[in-house]
Amino acid sequence: MSEPTEFLAAAEALLGSRGFTRDPDLMDPWLTDWRGRFSGKALALLSPSSTQEVSRTVRLCADHGIAIVPQGGNSGMCGGATPDASGNAVLLSLRRMDAIRSLDTEARQIVCEAGLVLQTLHEVAARERLRFPLTLGGKGSATVGGLISTNAGGTQVLRHGVMRDQVLGLEAVLADGSIFNGLTVLKKDNRGFDLKQMLIGSEGTLGIVTAATLRLLPETGGRSVAWAGLKSIGDARKLLLLAQDKAGHYLEGFEVMPQHSLEAVLAHTPDTRNPLTDIHPWQALIELVGEPGEAADLPAIVEDILAAGMEQGLVDDATIAANESQAEAFWLMRDEIAPAERAVGPAMQHDISVPVARMADFVEAAIPQVKARFPDTLPVAFGHLGDGNVHFHVIGPADAVRGQWELDQGKTISAYVHDLVTEWGGSISAEHGIGQMKRDELGRLGDPVANTMLRNVKQALDPQGILNPGKLVPLAPAP
Amino acid sequence: MSEPTEFLAAAEALLGSRGFTRDPDLMDPWLTDWRGRFSGKALALLSPSSTQEVSRTVRLCADHGIAIVPQGGNSGMCGGATPDASGNAVLLSLRRMDAIRSLDTEARQIVCEAGLVLQTLHEVAARERLRFPLTLGGKGSATVGGLISTNAGGTQVLRHGVMRDQVLGLEAVLADGSIFNGLTVLKKDNRGFDLKQMLIGSEGTLGIVTAATLRLLPETGGRSVAWAGLKSIGDARKLLLLAQDKAGHYLEGFEVMPQHSLEAVLAHTPDTRNPLTDIHPWQALIELVGEPGEAADLPAIVEDILAAGMEQGLVDDATIAANESQAEAFWLMRDEIAPAERAVGPAMQHDISVPVARMADFVEAAIPQVKARFPDTLPVAFGHLGDGNVHFHVIGPADAVRGQWELDQGKTISAYVHDLVTEWGGSISAEHGIGQMKRDELGRLGDPVANTMLRNVKQALDPQGILNPGKLVPLAPAP
Repeated sequence: MSEPTEFLAAAEALLGSRGFTRDPDLMDPWLTDWRGRFSGKALALLSPSSTQEVSRTVRLCADHGIAIVPQGGNSGMCGGATPDASGNAVLLSLRRMDAIRSLDTEARQIVCEAGLVLQTLHEVAARERLRFPLTLGGKGSATVGGLISTNAGGTQVLRHGVMRDQVLGLEAVLADGSIFNGLTVLKKDNRGFDLKQMLIGSEGTLGIVTAATLRLLPETGGRSVAWAGLKSIGDARKLLLLAQDKAGHYLEGFEVMPQHSLEAVLAHTPDTRNPLTDIHPWQALIELVGEPGEAADLPAIVEDILAAGMEQGLVDDATIAANESQAEAFWLMRDEIAPAERAVGPAMQHDISVPVARMADFVEAAIPQVKARFPDTLPVAFGHLGDGNVHFHVIGPADAVRGQWELDQGKTISAYVHDLVTEWGGSISAEHGIGQMKRDELGRLGDPVANTMLRNVKQALDPQGILNPGKLVPLAPAP
Repeated sequence: MSEPTEFLAAAEALLGSRGFTRDPDLMDPWLTDWRGRFSGKALALLSPSSTQEVSRTVRLCADHGIAIVPQGGNSGMCGGATPDASGNAVLLSLRRMDAIRSLDTEARQIVCEAGLVLQTLHEVAARERLRFPLTLGGKGSATVGGLISTNAGGTQVLRHGVMRDQVLGLEAVLADGSIFNGLTVLKKDNRGFDLKQMLIGSEGTLGIVTAATLRLLPETGGRSVAWAGLKSIGDARKLLLLAQDKAGHYLEGFEVMPQHSLEAVLAHTPDTRNPLTDIHPWQALIELVGEPGEAADLPAIVEDILAAGMEQGLVDDATIAANESQAEAFWLMRDEIAPAERAVGPAMQHDISVPVARMADFVEAAIPQVKARFPDTLPVAFGHLGDGNVHFHVIGPADAVRGQWELDQGKTISAYVHDLVTEWGGSISAEHGIGQMKRDELGRLGDPVANTMLRNVKQALDPQGILNPGKLVPLAPAP
């Protein structure tokens, strides 16, 4: 393809020097995903500063048939914001659009633009004694638009739900440049099927999220965080049920990690120490969060959970964080698992879910199966047991060469894990999305009826196929 | 159109005598909606008994280009389940499909078929000491499929949300007869945009809901119901904020009704009496519901709300139901408003919403505006103040002839009310849907971008246009 000089000139004229660049030094950091797994090229980096500018930019691209790869914080996990190698697409960054348009403390709603960083959103809410109830490791770079486009999860889903549950209203630019304005919040609105829901989780393939109205909650009324050592993930499941029963809606987090993950964190993360004397086959991190004005005695509830867990033989040892800094230290252990596991050596990572009640059984069945099929690997699962979502890593052998082993072995291993989770009625993407990484796996394993629906809706809303091509929507099967 | 004899013979062979009829006596009750506002004709009444039969039936219709009008309890409010006058469509009843496929008391999930009646669902849940947290006046006839297809609301939305919030999984037959199987519940699943959400509220235009996985909650731990007399709906709004502040998540209902509605109920409903000595300009019905095992003293919280309301001059008089039968009697007053208002005389009814915080202001502004524009009418608003959703009735003059006045005056009045609510950023359908009644109003007042999306998605998923034609999806504007 020869260079579309006319388009490039028009885009530069439209967006000006702050909104248009082809400088490789400025573009390069955004052409590779943060984990260095996906790389691509782009015609230019476009950074519009308003919804109107996004609209005009998309219309210009539509007129010239130029593909658009929308990007937020570039902290996605599946290459959804990385262009392909052709260099025919533009990278459309939403990072300049980070304004807070309004904040209604009475209604507890914030209208913010797509480029707002999650960490900043937390801080803005906290200043009003409110909180935004979704968080995840990449909060320092993840943007509101990216969180919505990937329907992000995180560590508070058990109580507060995924990103979809936080989005009350949405503004997006569609493939023809028209603006879908759904920011006004109506608690009840039955004017047809809910178009907002279609855009959430669509990874920029149906429209480009430019702003959203998000719900906020009252600031927390303190928390109580416990760490328990357990014999098995089956016991962790039983402890989860016990905790749900005793803590009700105060239960905000229930994370599990096996011995290997804890050892990796202790070995690779400075300033970490095991909260218990011993390392157990499994550890559970339990968090209860109160609401202001409620009289609940959270530490007493946590103690009750742990005491009952010990009495029932589920918990071998346990400790409760004595203060906020200990609670932070417990959570640091959890948050550092992924980087620590990566430091150990190459691993294939899988973000999978099955029905919540089946996750413990799945892990207990899948780990020996994977081990038997790939004897030189070490399968490890950790994460959100309360959501039926674990990160299932398959670690390569000690002599595996990073970068090579994944290419040689990775695809076979991932296909095997995805087959297993599909057999169990689960999802090959629980919270990270599909992007370019899992598109073909979704085509292979997804329900053909659902895959056809995805393709038909995509075709209807983006007939030219200019919005984030090659991502999410599986190709039609060969005839 | 000549009769499609080949199709009819094939349909009869497929569905047998229990599933196929052309007998006018059997068909007639279903060819007019329950309020007698919409009537139509149909080629035949088809009543498949399984998802497979629905699939085969739809495929047969698709092969012959026969339109399908899906129907549940025939208790919709907008003619969404009534065929048109052409008689070219078949009526597809889901009522034979009323099985409960499974009930998981631990996960609190029920998988039931589309024809299950809401009242039965309540009873089934109650037997397991669980509850399904959505109810409405038509619960004795409304079916799960209809509730999902219209994304029904009701009187518990304030706390528990609309039907969309109860649906965890969905099974539907698409326009080509293929079966979308999304019944398995995954708390996290990011395999593309959420197709289930597209089908909810689509009024049978994108697919026919055949079964669903619904969430259940623990049975309630008692309730406390109060009745308050107020000077204005503005004061009711302030009392609502007070109640939300003091009752938190226990607040399950907050309904308002003006003097006229109360008088209508007292005049037209046997065995009703005013809970207070006087009739006030406005009355509020407040319900707090506990959860089992929680120690909250609901009557004390209600008393606290009312005392603070009196102290702030918001509440003129109030009473708390002394027992369950009094609580039922309070709710009967609320549930009987619509029938009582209908008994008074002809009225144009509007199911509208605006942002929750603006509803009191809207009612205070709109009532005198409507009265000024149509001096011989009486505008009355009642309903779900806590959801920003009221039923806005415009009652005809005393000498209005029922059936005639609506035709002569109705369209102008409704257009005026819909214009007003659109100016306020609201919705012309809060909880009843669009159906055939409001399709053209949605075309006139809906966001053109959103309307185009509705049309494009409809075209993509039902290119032949055989699923519930003439409903919901606005026609394209004349070029």
